[in-house]
Amino acid sequence: MKKLDKITPQNEDFSRWYTDVVKQGQLMEYGPVKGTIVFKPNSYGIWENIQMEFNKVIRSKGVKNVYLPVLIPLSYIEKEKDHVKGFAPELATITKVGDKELNEYSVIRPTSEVLFGELFAKEVNSYNDLPIMYNQWANVLRWEKTTNPFLRTSEFLWQEGHTTHATAIEARKLSRTMIKEYAKFLEKYLAIPTIVGKKTPKEKFAGAVTTYTIEAMMKDGKALQSGTSHYLGQNFAKAFNISFQNKDNKQELAYQTSWGVSTRLIGAIIMTHGDDRGIIIPPRVAPTQIDIIEVFGHKHENVHTAAVELQKTLGRKWRVNLDASSKGPGFKAGQSEIQGTPLRIEVGPRDLEEGIVTLVRRDTLEKIQMPIDEVKKQIKPLLDDIHNNLLTSAKARLEEKTIYTESYEEFKSIFKDDKNLKFVIVPFAGNDKDEEMIKRETLASTRCLPFKFEKPGRRKCIITGQLTNRFVVFAKAY
Amino acid sequence: MKKLDKITPQNEDFSRWYTDVVKQGQLMEYGPVKGTIVFKPNSYGIWENIQMEFNKVIRSKGVKNVYLPVLIPLSYIEKEKDHVKGFAPELATITKVGDKELNEYSVIRPTSEVLFGELFAKEVNSYNDLPIMYNQWANVLRWEKTTNPFLRTSEFLWQEGHTTHATAIEARKLSRTMIKEYAKFLEKYLAIPTIVGKKTPKEKFAGAVTTYTIEAMMKDGKALQSGTSHYLGQNFAKAFNISFQNKDNKQELAYQTSWGVSTRLIGAIIMTHGDDRGIIIPPRVAPTQIDIIEVFGHKHENVHTAAVELQKTLGRKWRVNLDASSKGPGFKAGQSEIQGTPLRIEVGPRDLEEGIVTLVRRDTLEKIQMPIDEVKKQIKPLLDDIHNNLLTSAKARLEEKTIYTESYEEFKSIFKDDKNLKFVIVPFAGNDKDEEMIKRETLASTRCLPFKFEKPGRRKCIITGQLTNRFVVFAKAY
Repeated sequence: MKKLDKITPQNEDFSRWYTDVVKQGQLMEYGPVKGTIVFKPNSYGIWENIQMEFNKVIRSKGVKNVYLPVLIPLSYIEKEKDHVKGFAPELATITKVGDKELNEYSVIRPTSEVLFGELFAKEVNSYNDLPIMYNQWANVLRWEKTTNPFLRTSEFLWQEGHTTHATAIEARKLSRTMIKEYAKFLEKYLAIPTIVGKKTPKEKFAGAVTTYTIEAMMKDGKALQSGTSHYLGQNFAKAFNISFQNKDNKQELAYQTSWGVSTRLIGAIIMTHGDDRGIIIPPRVAPTQIDIIEVFGHKHENVHTAAVELQKTLGRKWRVNLDASSKGPGFKAGQSEIQGTPLRIEVGPRDLEEGIVTLVRRDTLEKIQMPIDEVKKQIKPLLDDIHNNLLTSAKARLEEKTIYTESYEEFKSIFKDDKNLKFVIVPFAGNDKDEEMIKRETLASTRCLPFKFEKPGRRKCIITGQLTNRFVVFAKAY
Repeated sequence: MKKLDKITPQNEDFSRWYTDVVKQGQLMEYGPVKGTIVFKPNSYGIWENIQMEFNKVIRSKGVKNVYLPVLIPLSYIEKEKDHVKGFAPELATITKVGDKELNEYSVIRPTSEVLFGELFAKEVNSYNDLPIMYNQWANVLRWEKTTNPFLRTSEFLWQEGHTTHATAIEARKLSRTMIKEYAKFLEKYLAIPTIVGKKTPKEKFAGAVTTYTIEAMMKDGKALQSGTSHYLGQNFAKAFNISFQNKDNKQELAYQTSWGVSTRLIGAIIMTHGDDRGIIIPPRVAPTQIDIIEVFGHKHENVHTAAVELQKTLGRKWRVNLDASSKGPGFKAGQSEIQGTPLRIEVGPRDLEEGIVTLVRRDTLEKIQMPIDEVKKQIKPLLDDIHNNLLTSAKARLEEKTIYTESYEEFKSIFKDDKNLKFVIVPFAGNDKDEEMIKRETLASTRCLPFKFEKPGRRKCIITGQLTNRFVVFAKAY
């Protein structure tokens, strides 16, 4: 039994706070290969719940789950030129099996457009076969220079949807539908509001025509790209010859999309909701929704009996954990808090004499006493309220810390240090080089051209000075 | 729309039958790297259902799901000597990232004992921490010389359970519990009976003290090892220094188990239940449990309306697919059969005039007409009956084709060709070399020392002639 260590306060050093809570919150351990991590039950459980819920979204769209190989021949990756340029330096390459050098090298998939491309080429013959819509849950690997648990790891887990359509309109529409589904999903299950928009050409996916993104704001004011959806046009169809006979009996190249969210979402949860006591996991994806804590249950049999009974009752509907150990109640409460369980129920001998127990909300730390028989029907409203409260706080922060300016001076002042970071919307008509220059000067990058932004009419670009109707969100980003 | 090709009859050539049905049953495509395959929705769906149901077993045992890295430093694998000897020639090795040679080579996990070993070493301090029981669902890779879809692929999907205990008795008990859980699971969900037993030293897992196995019999009389559970003793605890303070305040090395089933089970399903019309998927894991087929629904609106209504009603509880296309009903029925959907419902214009529909069982091909309003309540009994019928047939075959002999001549006659293969139980006291000799002479290998076998007392070993109480199942195996 290890003692709980001190957590660095968020205000003192946000990144040290993050490192402290991911370890002490029983979320992960570092793996032996650089940039890899072990997902422990308290983080893998979040991912399992995300999978379970997002599979419902996927099914409702008619998308089917499949699984494609982890190994891609190096020669395949090279077929789409932008694609290979984007990924080449990060590719883990298998050159040997046992002692034997391979004739053809393979890489661990950094993403699977090329294998889906080959699969679609086999399956698509006529417009009658389309659309074909697949998704896979898989591990992918991109060798990263600097890594950070959940946020940027060499290996990560994700879902990648890949669809093929008979028309550009249908494909583009699906790619926009999916980014909106992601935004809805993050609000409904992770209590995370996002800004939905389109990436600038510089920031789009290697091989895409258009990339859509959802950008979440972390508690330190930095952005976390939390999901992307790509309209691929005919780029991969060209490279892999995915063609079909269209309604006019002519051969046509198909139109494609791909879209994904990853275990990065676990990082988003931590940095959106966590506080100085540890992480806070939103109830709908929490591996443990309720911690039942026996207060000296090893000395009071009625405490133990009542706690076990409560676990049985609540366990039928909720994910419940009972701590019946002989550890002190303060230690148990601290552990529940640092691990982010949204609700805990303390069953103590004195309370029990009056037939009551104490519920403690992880978000507000509010203590609520109630008759033990009342608990069952109070769980749903309480967990819903915790979810709503987390979402409301996060929304308020996103709103408060998103500003509009037309002055590059003000822009620079916001990013001059990390004390008061914001999302900054500006009129911007610049190109890749202008984006690079801004990043050099301020460390801020373009996040997206937001879908929902009431445009004030044509305004002067903060860099080029030309009149523009293009408004872009900038932020420092993870 | 591709025409259905002819399937090679099982009696003519079982292995060609297998190749035909895995392709035409919409189960897989070959991947570009040797020995890899694409799991299409009709096979990946089976795996998802296995995951869903087996997770319940795992949870009921107190085992928690985690996820460990896909990359293992080569130096780690080398820490347990038997282990590396077993896996070295099959290890896919990453030597480069982009253009850069790595200082330390890594391999794609062939199994994860070594990474779990390192994790346990971090987590185990005192007997109070034990047992720790983890499981992961993951892809693993072993470079195989000869491959066969689902049965033996370079990359495959599996679950691997890894547990650490304070005593040898507890660990050994858990490893036996899990092999029995596998046997129960295969009967209950896959309708596959197995012989449960212990492997001979020659056939045990590289690094284990004891390996338990479940062996299923395929329709051609060959064995398929379908799940294994290993008692690892202190072998990995030694290599990774997993030690704890025991109740006597002394440091002691922990005792471990590991156990797994893989996507090989999909191969087991195909070769246990399939017939000359295609595969038959047991109802409890079938991605589609019911195919609703419109008979000329594009010409008869009432057919389409009734079929959609039926899909809605049944879809609340079952996994239902509606084929409303304009393809001919015979083609649709053939497709449903080849893809192994356990039950199909044909909704036709003439039947509908009388308010009835036709149900067709995939296992018996029996046609059952009933009022459309009756269907809903008949599904569960019908699917259960299909499951039971599949299991009963498979059990009868296993029983009929398992024989006991004390004559090596009879033994050899059974394995002289592949026409009438059996499981053969014999008194056998031989060693590794005797097993090798038998394999050379007959191609049969030891499958296990069965738990449930009424021993006839000490008998002469068929090879060494010495009296023995050891009885071993031999078979040709996949």
